[in-house]
Amino acid sequence: MSKPLILVTNDDGITAPGLRALIQFMKEIGDVVVVAPDSPQSGMGHAITIDNTLYIKKLNVDLENGAKEEYSCSGTPADCVKLGLQELLDRKPDLCVSGINHGSNSSINVIYSGTMSAAIEAGIEGIPAIGFSLCDYSWNANFEVSKAAVQKIVREALKNGIPKGVVLNVNIPKTGNESPKGIKICRQARANWKEKFDKRTNPNGKEYYWLTGEFELLDKGEDTDEYALTQDYVSVVPTQFDLTAHHAIQHLNNWELYD
Amino acid sequence: MSKPLILVTNDDGITAPGLRALIQFMKEIGDVVVVAPDSPQSGMGHAITIDNTLYIKKLNVDLENGAKEEYSCSGTPADCVKLGLQELLDRKPDLCVSGINHGSNSSINVIYSGTMSAAIEAGIEGIPAIGFSLCDYSWNANFEVSKAAVQKIVREALKNGIPKGVVLNVNIPKTGNESPKGIKICRQARANWKEKFDKRTNPNGKEYYWLTGEFELLDKGEDTDEYALTQDYVSVVPTQFDLTAHHAIQHLNNWELYD
Repeated sequence: MSKPLILVTNDDGITAPGLRALIQFMKEIGDVVVVAPDSPQSGMGHAITIDNTLYIKKLNVDLENGAKEEYSCSGTPADCVKLGLQELLDRKPDLCVSGINHGSNSSINVIYSGTMSAAIEAGIEGIPAIGFSLCDYSWNANFEVSKAAVQKIVREALKNGIPKGVVLNVNIPKTGNESPKGIKICRQARANWKEKFDKRTNPNGKEYYWLTGEFELLDKGEDTDEYALTQDYVSVVPTQFDLTAHHAIQHLNNWELYD
Repeated sequence: MSKPLILVTNDDGITAPGLRALIQFMKEIGDVVVVAPDSPQSGMGHAITIDNTLYIKKLNVDLENGAKEEYSCSGTPADCVKLGLQELLDRKPDLCVSGINHGSNSSINVIYSGTMSAAIEAGIEGIPAIGFSLCDYSWNANFEVSKAAVQKIVREALKNGIPKGVVLNVNIPKTGNESPKGIKICRQARANWKEKFDKRTNPNGKEYYWLTGEFELLDKGEDTDEYALTQDYVSVVPTQFDLTAHHAIQHLNNWELYD
């Protein structure tokens, strides 16, 4: 039986340790092709490059430690997936994985996530897709302890498929050198960021701002991704790109919008 | 009774005719403050600026034709909303409107939409929010014919509120100098883009790509935004930022993820 073809991408850029770890984990499962941004793209949301040119560079791969083929791209994570599928891969991949992100994409963070935008882009194209994120922003985070969970989720996705229109958002708790306790299927916790802008003055006397903020959990449910993560479990949230709030349609049909 | 305070933003930038039209329409309903990007941000998805500085410029307003206050910002549409709410407005606005976008944000386009990302950002902060888009990419499009529909939707939103966790995605059909036939509450049509990359060679012999594509409707439903638009109706899709695919949780609970 031929090995599955796995497209690997991320939003921290092609040199990120989280990407290198994911490549290693995927090499034990299938043939791996990487198309990743040539520079970090965090916070890019689901951006695509429409008013600018895109460059691709085919890299020399270290077959021992790298993928079968690796490409860096001047665009966003979503661009990488589009280019990979249309221009770089010989055939439709069996799976697209994105990450492992250096930092959480749980709860409301999914909305701002370049990691998840790449997975969602693949999902829109009908390819089973998973975004992986580790709740540790450190460049030197320990990814190795998440290997068993990541591989288990990927193997189950390849075996069972992922429902149409659904992409998995997987977050891995920060457990240092310990393995996570297990894996939980969750819903997205309700949360937001309490923004604080740090106002400064540049050397020319002009004011500018840095965006900072504090995460605010607004959800006491024990079936959420945030809850699982605080309990040292890996969270798996099935995520959809049909954004329709079907439950609200009836409410809106009572509005006086008709002449 | 005091007038409602309306925050207006967009993704085509502060000089866009669609924004100027929306300001005019809103001035007849409330007090208007504008915080909009200083340059076009189309295709930015839900990007935020975390690794870069943000600049704000207070503009001189023409009280006859402009808003009460106008600010341009060096960031993305989501940044504009965050800055507006935290730094620029005296009080929480009663409504945030984004647009009118020069081009469609119906069906899958919502995922890539800077216009909608601004509205969603306001929604996350608990503010009733609506994104407006006209299915006409022309800079000189006729926005005037949509005035009655836009104002009707805004007045109903102010009167009835918008359900929590829901933001409205409003698209206006391209009807030239005719008014749309009416307003329909819809679901997001299933669709994708069939990408085609236009490969070229730059003057230095280096290859590059332009992203182009063709819209592909995959949905025959008559309750979709695409269907309403082809019938010359304004489409209103209630859109949510809880991306959980609740129907898929049961499927995933059958996976062998547990030791």
